[in-house]
Amino acid sequence: MIVRDFNKIIENERGRVVSDAHWSSVRMLLAEDGMGFSFHVTFLEAGSEHTFHYKHHYESVYCMQGKGSITDLATGETHEIKPGVMYALDQHDRHTVRAEEELVMACCFNPPVTGTEVHREDGSYAPAVENA
Amino acid sequence: MIVRDFNKIIENERGRVVSDAHWSSVRMLLAEDGMGFSFHVTFLEAGSEHTFHYKHHYESVYCMQGKGSITDLATGETHEIKPGVMYALDQHDRHTVRAEEELVMACCFNPPVTGTEVHREDGSYAPAVENA
Repeated sequence: MIVRDFNKIIENERGRVVSDAHWSSVRMLLAEDGMGFSFHVTFLEAGSEHTFHYKHHYESVYCMQGKGSITDLATGETHEIKPGVMYALDQHDRHTVRAEEELVMACCFNPPVTGTEVHREDGSYAPAVENA
Repeated sequence: MIVRDFNKIIENERGRVVSDAHWSSVRMLLAEDGMGFSFHVTFLEAGSEHTFHYKHHYESVYCMQGKGSITDLATGETHEIKPGVMYALDQHDRHTVRAEEELVMACCFNPPVTGTEVHREDGSYAPAVENA
């Protein structure tokens, strides 16, 4: 059994915290944990906008706190994000997320993120083999 | 892209809500969604105690709200559960969860739950093939 505390990770295990200027992500579970998915708690800064395209991963995102929106860039459709709303990128959907208030999200990735990925210019993570 | 709202599910899609007397689970994502994992928001009633043993599934559980504890029945070790604590059953660990206050948990299962499983007497879910 693995037991991890978000609050201890952000104090003592900064290697599990990945950030850029306008978002940060606390990796609670990574590929090495052997669960077959990874689990992250991700913060998007109030007023920020992000375009991502996980070509090689499925991701689900559950809003725990905050307010914003997501646009499916294939259809142009925009959905409100608020606590209790989940979106799942079952078609590796290219999308833009906007945070009106800071968004706090519970994210699952399949295949699991290894922890070494960086967002590429096209908003994707490389497949695991390119990170190896 | 799949977008679902917890609050609309509990009003309009009761088929996604599974309960017994002391817990209920809202299935935000199931096997049929094709993500390779399922994602549930689960409530454990204040004062309740539950012994589970997911012999055929990996499960991670992230505490969003409430207070309680988890005991690993293999080692006897007990860990506090509070917001920000996650446990992951990477060894299919048999465990007892106690809710001092109502616990609200974000749960991921691999393989994904189909939605038709019931807890068996030993606290497990059957493997998917037995549910088919």
